[in-house]
Amino acid sequence: MESTSWQERYNATEIFTLRCRILDKPGMLGRFITEVGNIGAHIGTVNVVGLDSHHKIRDITVYCSNMKHLDEILAIARVNEYVEVESVRNDVLQIHNGGTIKMVSKVPIKNLTDLRMLYTPGVASVCEKIRTNNAFAWDMTGIRDRVAIVTNGTAVLGLGNIGSLASLPVMEGKASIFAEFADISAIPILINSENIDVCVETVTHIADSFGAIQLEDIAAPECFEIEQRLQEKLDKPVFHDDQHGTSTVVLAAIMNALKRTSRNAYDCDVLILGAGAAGTAIAKMLLKFGVRDVVVYDSTGPLYRGRNKKMNSHKFQLAEISNTKNQTCPLLEGFEGKDIFIGVASANLVSKDMVSRMAKNSIVFPLSNPAGEISIDDAMAAGAMVVANGREINNALAYPGLFRGALDVRAKDITFDMQVAAADKLAKLAGKESLLPNILDKQVHKEVAAAVSEAYMKQRK
Amino acid sequence: MESTSWQERYNATEIFTLRCRILDKPGMLGRFITEVGNIGAHIGTVNVVGLDSHHKIRDITVYCSNMKHLDEILAIARVNEYVEVESVRNDVLQIHNGGTIKMVSKVPIKNLTDLRMLYTPGVASVCEKIRTNNAFAWDMTGIRDRVAIVTNGTAVLGLGNIGSLASLPVMEGKASIFAEFADISAIPILINSENIDVCVETVTHIADSFGAIQLEDIAAPECFEIEQRLQEKLDKPVFHDDQHGTSTVVLAAIMNALKRTSRNAYDCDVLILGAGAAGTAIAKMLLKFGVRDVVVYDSTGPLYRGRNKKMNSHKFQLAEISNTKNQTCPLLEGFEGKDIFIGVASANLVSKDMVSRMAKNSIVFPLSNPAGEISIDDAMAAGAMVVANGREINNALAYPGLFRGALDVRAKDITFDMQVAAADKLAKLAGKESLLPNILDKQVHKEVAAAVSEAYMKQRK
Repeated sequence: MESTSWQERYNATEIFTLRCRILDKPGMLGRFITEVGNIGAHIGTVNVVGLDSHHKIRDITVYCSNMKHLDEILAIARVNEYVEVESVRNDVLQIHNGGTIKMVSKVPIKNLTDLRMLYTPGVASVCEKIRTNNAFAWDMTGIRDRVAIVTNGTAVLGLGNIGSLASLPVMEGKASIFAEFADISAIPILINSENIDVCVETVTHIADSFGAIQLEDIAAPECFEIEQRLQEKLDKPVFHDDQHGTSTVVLAAIMNALKRTSRNAYDCDVLILGAGAAGTAIAKMLLKFGVRDVVVYDSTGPLYRGRNKKMNSHKFQLAEISNTKNQTCPLLEGFEGKDIFIGVASANLVSKDMVSRMAKNSIVFPLSNPAGEISIDDAMAAGAMVVANGREINNALAYPGLFRGALDVRAKDITFDMQVAAADKLAKLAGKESLLPNILDKQVHKEVAAAVSEAYMKQRK
Repeated sequence: MESTSWQERYNATEIFTLRCRILDKPGMLGRFITEVGNIGAHIGTVNVVGLDSHHKIRDITVYCSNMKHLDEILAIARVNEYVEVESVRNDVLQIHNGGTIKMVSKVPIKNLTDLRMLYTPGVASVCEKIRTNNAFAWDMTGIRDRVAIVTNGTAVLGLGNIGSLASLPVMEGKASIFAEFADISAIPILINSENIDVCVETVTHIADSFGAIQLEDIAAPECFEIEQRLQEKLDKPVFHDDQHGTSTVVLAAIMNALKRTSRNAYDCDVLILGAGAAGTAIAKMLLKFGVRDVVVYDSTGPLYRGRNKKMNSHKFQLAEISNTKNQTCPLLEGFEGKDIFIGVASANLVSKDMVSRMAKNSIVFPLSNPAGEISIDDAMAAGAMVVANGREINNALAYPGLFRGALDVRAKDITFDMQVAAADKLAKLAGKESLLPNILDKQVHKEVAAAVSEAYMKQRK
């Protein structure tokens, strides 16, 4: 489960946009992208951006898992008369150039009265109102829409500990998603320390600036203590997305997978591979939700009571509450009879043999990104009935609505009930053929937010 | 110089918008606002928002220095047939409701390719680029446009130590100005501590998130040490606006005032009343700029070598470099023969008698807000030739361009030369009758930024 090099592990997905001049004859586009597909590159968006009498000019987005792919695609174009690649753009770099977010004024400054209301002397009366009663700050400032995305860069995507500065494009991407899907002003806060005390104290000292705190890409086990201590100190939501965003979306997918395989949660045995932030949170979530048993494996083997090798306090705690039969067998045997497998470790750790040992009509979620613990095809071939990977089970389905819903009712935390409400709503909004709804549908995020708010209000009664 | 209550000191400027139905006959508007003026309330914007056969409906912004004003204005309307006040709005509260700034995505998320470039899997390649070479973060993220506005709320406007949360509307107002005038994404960061070490450490730990740090409304003398230590620790601009924003604009106004009074800086003796952040910075700025002498008074008297009462380390330092004749006389005698007076203390501390003791054609800037150390009229009557108050000499003229200019060339700090360049540009852009240009003119801020960038590049040669 430990990392080798980034290129191997992460598979280096590079996205390029090719501007192609393709002969304007039915079948030519299909022929080209078939050839591209044959060498293993995926196709994204295909746009028509120009025409001449004989050609269509198209922008075609290709996903290359290594740079050789791009060369091979260009070679296809070179040897075929019907297609010419005019240019190759790296739209990812273009999108991230200068950052993906910006702060704007909600108030245009067109005359001096605008300025004198926004700033001195008018603003003084607003300050006085808040000084008299701090509760006014919720209405008279933007904190009710403002979330800090806090990271120290120690566990970024599948890239590992790359430092907080290198993680900033991820935090900005998350902030863009917050803005687009939930009208939340998210602020990347990079902490230049791996020290737990420093992280806790720094966030505590600036927490008044925000309505809620999202922790992000902080390595386990430090993330658990940082989150817990901040939750104890602050009277506002502190939510580690790698844990609870992920576990919420997994729960939603499980809800629909249970239906599709005619199971009840309380009859299900679950195997989770990976005891980091996501694995731990998913285990706790599913146990609380009522599955019969969960066994968590890390690179050393299963977590069980009595194990002493490569443990830490959170693993001891997890061993206490999971693995009721105290299963100690290796991973292969661990699959025996399990109903659900969830992988949050890394690529290609699970074989067809393993999956074939699971119960009939099993549920298999190899969530490691960008390549799962086992491919969809292999899992299906080995007898799994419902299979979904990390592309489908995306935490960006949950966190915008969870935060929006919490902020809308000024919740002090984001509780288990609120997460279950979000999962339940996501499950219900999925189409008949899908485990989860469309992430681009803004109405989905709105409805999740409403469900989360409602769950909080119900809890308070 | 010490504060009494806020209401007395700050004069509690409240801005209201009256919706008035006024008889549609020439002279009626003038009659009404004359009556309003007669009771001492100022008029801001006057808009026509509706009509009927006999009336114009107008929104009139009035500045009331106390709540009695509003009652008196309403009474005027009640006893006069030609005007009726239909409603009173507090536009200040409306503008600040929900805050004045918001974070938006520069990238619309319209399809999955957008999302997959903005976030996973595409974003990983951007992170890798930065991990390989941290310098890429300047281009591949938004930090080149991102400034933290850091406060602990210990010296907010004229309100004093109201705490950081109550200061947030000011920070948001400043951020709105940054966005509108300089395309800078400014982030209010509230620190919940008055401790110097905590402030320095907190900012240091999150500084990677920003391209520059603006310190704001932090009390003297703590502000000096906080700024200095941060400047030493960080390789990016750290700029306390109450000091250097103010001193830059004052210098610009002085440049034009010297011209108008046919003076040279090196022939000028300056009296500064107030030894806080602004007074200290203005003193240092003017001395560096080359005035003959500066004497700084605080509530105890002049700063001089040998004074031991109510001193602190920065006052000792200031006494060393200023007051060449080691003047020890009280304030009244201190005015004798001075060419320039600058007040950054509080309202009504300066008498006509004091100003009349100054040199002929003196320059008097009573900058305390909202009411100056002496009124414009009294200063003129006492013989001053150029008089300007804190409404005209507004630091928002300087800081947007100073930061934009510094960020544009990735400056490591905002130096004296850069501030002089900004002041010089502001002085040059002022109209013939004005000391300073129009703050609403975005071209002004652009030209200041260009001058600041140029000064930095020149310095580096």
